[in-house]
Amino acid sequence: MTMHASRELIEAKQMLAVARQEALRGKAAGGIPIGAALYGPDGELLGSGHNRRVQDDDPSMHAETAAFRNAGRRPHYRDTIMVTTLSPCWYCSGLVRQFNISRVVIGEATTFSGGHDWLAEHGVQVTIVDDPDCVELMTEFIKEHPDLWFEDIGEERS
Amino acid sequence: MTMHASRELIEAKQMLAVARQEALRGKAAGGIPIGAALYGPDGELLGSGHNRRVQDDDPSMHAETAAFRNAGRRPHYRDTIMVTTLSPCWYCSGLVRQFNISRVVIGEATTFSGGHDWLAEHGVQVTIVDDPDCVELMTEFIKEHPDLWFEDIGEERS
Repeated sequence: MTMHASRELIEAKQMLAVARQEALRGKAAGGIPIGAALYGPDGELLGSGHNRRVQDDDPSMHAETAAFRNAGRRPHYRDTIMVTTLSPCWYCSGLVRQFNISRVVIGEATTFSGGHDWLAEHGVQVTIVDDPDCVELMTEFIKEHPDLWFEDIGEERS
Repeated sequence: MTMHASRELIEAKQMLAVARQEALRGKAAGGIPIGAALYGPDGELLGSGHNRRVQDDDPSMHAETAAFRNAGRRPHYRDTIMVTTLSPCWYCSGLVRQFNISRVVIGEATTFSGGHDWLAEHGVQVTIVDDPDCVELMTEFIKEHPDLWFEDIGEERS
């Protein structure tokens, strides 16, 4: 690993810690434990949030859309970084592509794999941290609340 | 045109009228005039909404996401129809794909073309009504408020 890549990974882990705190807040409130944070080009936190399906009865508030909402209105999102504990689903991947968010940092893509390869094909810089704490959080949640999980990704259980 | 296709187009126009009413409500409130409605398999209206960027200072509320939110939580969206006055951007196209919404009815794709071809490639039934009232509504809006329009699709003006 080059020194540059190493520094990027350290920064990615620091940003991921904020997204993971959001996920834990969501879990503590009985919600789906996925968190996200949107960062600006100079490393400033623009907004963070977590999945609010259960808390607000709102199916549109995935972690990434909540972070995006909480960041407020901006003229553009070039040079921003979306950090999320879990691989972004197609809905949230579409958000990243439409708004030209330039980089996505993902806690893990083991328990669920969304559109991150598609984003990379379209020029988005994708970093998968493969964080064991993020994997454990989702693995436990899916085991304990499969109905909520499948509802959140719009899949019918077989 | 077959009788079946003709009936489908009449139904599409009836559903589109509801989405267009939402767009006009948004316009009347000083917002971005894009509306949407989510219909169930038996033609029942599940929820409708319009872009709320201006009204709520919320960049995450496009017309389609507002309709989806207002439809509330559902175990799945198979057999639902998303109706929108304007071709869905990547964010809203991602919503349709992730939640397996089976059909999209689009007022017009002239003033803006989002991800509807991509959705069709992935098995979504796409109907473009090519409604002149929808075209006029967006043409006027983009001419009068270009900054709001480009902000809403995350594009920097040249």
